[in-house]
Amino acid sequence: MYRTHHCGALRLEDAGKEITLAGWVDISRNLGGMTFIDLRDRFGITQLAFNMEENADLCNQARKVGREWVLQATGVVRERSSKNANRPTGDVEISVTALEVLNSSKVPPFTIQDETDGGDDIRMKFRYLDLRRNPVQQNILFRHKLAMETRKYLSDAEFIEVETPVLIKSTPEGARDFVVPSRINAGQFYALPQSPQTFKQLLMVSGFDRYFQIVKCFRDEDLRADRQPEFTQIDCEMSFVHQEDILNTFEGLTRHLFQTLKGIELRDFPRMQYDDAVRLYGSDKPDLRFGMQFKELNHLAKGKDFAIFDHAELIVGVCADGIADQFSNKDLNEMTEWVKRPQIGAGGLVYVRFNTDGSIKSSIGKFFSDEDLQQWAAEFGAKAGDILFIMSGETDKVRKQLSELRLELGNRLGLRKSDEFKPLWVLDFPLLEWDETTERFYAMHHPFTSPKKADIPRMLNGDHETMKSLRADAYDLVINGVEIGGGSIRIHDRELQSKNFKLLGFTPEKAEDQFGFLVGAFEYGAPPHGGIAFGLDRLCAVLNGQNSIRDFIAFPKNNMGRDTMIDAPSAIDDVQLNELSIQLDIKK
Amino acid sequence: MYRTHHCGALRLEDAGKEITLAGWVDISRNLGGMTFIDLRDRFGITQLAFNMEENADLCNQARKVGREWVLQATGVVRERSSKNANRPTGDVEISVTALEVLNSSKVPPFTIQDETDGGDDIRMKFRYLDLRRNPVQQNILFRHKLAMETRKYLSDAEFIEVETPVLIKSTPEGARDFVVPSRINAGQFYALPQSPQTFKQLLMVSGFDRYFQIVKCFRDEDLRADRQPEFTQIDCEMSFVHQEDILNTFEGLTRHLFQTLKGIELRDFPRMQYDDAVRLYGSDKPDLRFGMQFKELNHLAKGKDFAIFDHAELIVGVCADGIADQFSNKDLNEMTEWVKRPQIGAGGLVYVRFNTDGSIKSSIGKFFSDEDLQQWAAEFGAKAGDILFIMSGETDKVRKQLSELRLELGNRLGLRKSDEFKPLWVLDFPLLEWDETTERFYAMHHPFTSPKKADIPRMLNGDHETMKSLRADAYDLVINGVEIGGGSIRIHDRELQSKNFKLLGFTPEKAEDQFGFLVGAFEYGAPPHGGIAFGLDRLCAVLNGQNSIRDFIAFPKNNMGRDTMIDAPSAIDDVQLNELSIQLDIKK
Repeated sequence: MYRTHHCGALRLEDAGKEITLAGWVDISRNLGGMTFIDLRDRFGITQLAFNMEENADLCNQARKVGREWVLQATGVVRERSSKNANRPTGDVEISVTALEVLNSSKVPPFTIQDETDGGDDIRMKFRYLDLRRNPVQQNILFRHKLAMETRKYLSDAEFIEVETPVLIKSTPEGARDFVVPSRINAGQFYALPQSPQTFKQLLMVSGFDRYFQIVKCFRDEDLRADRQPEFTQIDCEMSFVHQEDILNTFEGLTRHLFQTLKGIELRDFPRMQYDDAVRLYGSDKPDLRFGMQFKELNHLAKGKDFAIFDHAELIVGVCADGIADQFSNKDLNEMTEWVKRPQIGAGGLVYVRFNTDGSIKSSIGKFFSDEDLQQWAAEFGAKAGDILFIMSGETDKVRKQLSELRLELGNRLGLRKSDEFKPLWVLDFPLLEWDETTERFYAMHHPFTSPKKADIPRMLNGDHETMKSLRADAYDLVINGVEIGGGSIRIHDRELQSKNFKLLGFTPEKAEDQFGFLVGAFEYGAPPHGGIAFGLDRLCAVLNGQNSIRDFIAFPKNNMGRDTMIDAPSAIDDVQLNELSIQLDIKK
Repeated sequence: MYRTHHCGALRLEDAGKEITLAGWVDISRNLGGMTFIDLRDRFGITQLAFNMEENADLCNQARKVGREWVLQATGVVRERSSKNANRPTGDVEISVTALEVLNSSKVPPFTIQDETDGGDDIRMKFRYLDLRRNPVQQNILFRHKLAMETRKYLSDAEFIEVETPVLIKSTPEGARDFVVPSRINAGQFYALPQSPQTFKQLLMVSGFDRYFQIVKCFRDEDLRADRQPEFTQIDCEMSFVHQEDILNTFEGLTRHLFQTLKGIELRDFPRMQYDDAVRLYGSDKPDLRFGMQFKELNHLAKGKDFAIFDHAELIVGVCADGIADQFSNKDLNEMTEWVKRPQIGAGGLVYVRFNTDGSIKSSIGKFFSDEDLQQWAAEFGAKAGDILFIMSGETDKVRKQLSELRLELGNRLGLRKSDEFKPLWVLDFPLLEWDETTERFYAMHHPFTSPKKADIPRMLNGDHETMKSLRADAYDLVINGVEIGGGSIRIHDRELQSKNFKLLGFTPEKAEDQFGFLVGAFEYGAPPHGGIAFGLDRLCAVLNGQNSIRDFIAFPKNNMGRDTMIDAPSAIDDVQLNELSIQLDIKK
């Protein structure tokens, strides 16, 4: 036994006890007659006291230890004369009688404090030291608790966690697979799963009824900020359910997590059609912490000789309540420049300021009379003190641009509070998504998603607009503008699945080769089923009002998919390549 | 809602209720006036009743459904006239008023019954149907419960589950890695972890104190029966511990699992030195459900002109109690043939039968007098009715052979009961293992295992026998002759780690290249630490008195590492190879 207690355990009622602690030197202070060391472990910090008069040797020994050294200290708990109310152990200190240095430490390359002086790169290279910092450790602890509570809730609700294989078959549909050459089967490859989708559906065919798994998934995508090549899903599937059953079950899970982990009772889980979300917020994941719904102005703003509006497919805007006094012309110019940046790509921004003195000021006063603008105000329900922000252009593009502007206004106006949580189910996603590059339709969710029953008869008529209008039994759970989960009711009928593959441009041979086992399984009594998957990394971030998923991953990779601490990926030797029957073929 | 209840829910007190069930047709019986369908789901079976007189249409509809069809049935719960006491729902049946076929089924390629007529290959190809069978489903459910209880126990004991990366760096030491070509970093590869060893040690350096993870691990080995390329470990690590702390903690976990999952209170967890295990049982994982400890006879059996013994390095045997009457000469001949099979490879087997009438019969009577053999009996504590089985040869080989014979005798004599459980800690494993092929020492556990403190001064003297004699703080937990877990106290000192790498033939450059990050971490205040890993698949099998781990894996691979259901691994297309900067290079 290296210790009798953790460094967070001792209280005033322990005074007089002889104890042993072990931990790291957080800080040490030499005050001449006395030397104090704050000894730290995962559980807390306890003060060690050394008295020059009582034991000079020991005190001198204590003076030599540096930050992050590992110590074992035996001594007697006593009441502190100057207490530290900010620390649970702050009423006591240890009058040390024996000290052993278990390990020394070089000076760390950055400070092991809540606010560190270390930059991103150095903290990633020395991630094991970064993980010693309290905020990072708390994040990882939070993730553990979230996973435990998720398992408890789902297991209590009769879900069974089943491990599905990691070495599976490559299916080029969807994102790019990571592949693994097979040594025993030369020339053949496994793939790492992008999700356990087909396996969880097979488990439903097997009668497991309710499945879940907290599982690593893999996507070989070009990495953007805050994307990881490996990520963790809470993956779930249920049999004999309609969409309503799934929404209720996972609304329950989400409430449970907020309640047990954050002490927060979520109120409503409103529901919104995908089409409405896009029309009213320009996004399939609207942030409902604030209003600023879109209003469309084509009927009011066209035909007034303002060419930009006259040529636009859509004129659309938002109203920011009561900001006319606080938002200067400089602010308005800033917003205009902001939307013109390449990341947003808008041509410009029209504003209409309804001043509190009743006057109206706008950037398009030349073309629109005050009466015209009062009509706009009526459309928005705007009153004196409000400002309208109007954009125009091609429908899809302008909605996206205005959505970005709405979020930016929300940020600037402090409307996106990190301690407020607004969940939303977005329902009835399109079945298909048109890809301009390859000029074909792809499954918006995945090829196993069921079209809405009413849309099945229209599936194979081939007309582009009809195909765009098909809707699926697919849903996303959005919190504060972040998609934390998504799923669908699946096809469980062989005929319908074949029809869907055809719609997606699969030849029967290709469908058979890639998904024959699943379609074959549908012939042996597949039950109606559906499911959902949550991004665990993202869920952790959202519950803590944070943006970066990397802060909730113990050993994340950087934007080049590298682990700079262990230096992976790396070259392998020729023996390995030979055994795997592959050669390098690097084009410069 | 497809149903109001599961198929295992209804009881006599539900009589009169209108309910809806959904599930699979287990069996249907047409008795003329009445038709009965057993409707099955994960939770049980409920009988549906259809009456020709009451509703001929519905009854005719029911007669048409086949096995494994998926039905939704609404009706009224009523008491059965002929009850089925073997089934929790056996007191009631459903008088069906509405029936919907949710899906039909082809005739399955094997029967979906506890005892199926399907062979191994067909059951693996149609694994989703095999998983519908109750014993297989119960195994997977057991695995879920075992994982849940493990997490609960460890989490309650302040362990934190931390996910470590799957895409890591290849380290040729140890078993062969599976590798993953990186597209973004052309010519470089990730490796899949054989275990999270280095990461869990880094987490100790980070101060996580107690870590666990139920985690997939990967080894690209030539597959033997019951080996899987991917398998699951309960991986654990603790800081500030000695070996004793780890043994106690995981004895606690093992007791908890046996108690909660099987209702079994395990008694002792005896401890045995590795050297004693090998000397007394010829194995580092002895099955203690029965005795038959080895006795060595060199001092009694040499010098009697029996050349085989005289030339043998070791003469060693076991005594089978009281079997002289039941073990015929034919049986003895059979055992002799059994040890001569190539799998065992012994030259022969000597027996001494102490008959119940006081006479002695042996296969080496020519060389040894009855007085000689009575001396042997005294050595074994053998009495009338016992049989001695003696083997001889090179020490290591003959011990292994006799160990196999001992286990086979245990099987034949019914001494290895599937409902009896005998745990054992085997301690103080050798630090190093000599490999004949490459003529060098390898780490028996892994390169991070700490030598015993007393052996450290002898580490670098280079003498072969000294190196063989070095012992490590390494331990295995064995139950019923199966190793279910193993671990060690780790090195936490940079100097000692470097010394150990040198011992294992690493150049300083190679050590730095492969494990520089870990050795570097030891310079920043690494605490004393150690850990253990359990094979989850094997643990499930052992707790159920079964041998095959495959039965506890939802989607296992065959002995060629293939998943025959999804047909993986498989060829990938040239576009993928190109993107990954590799080419096939298949030698015929």
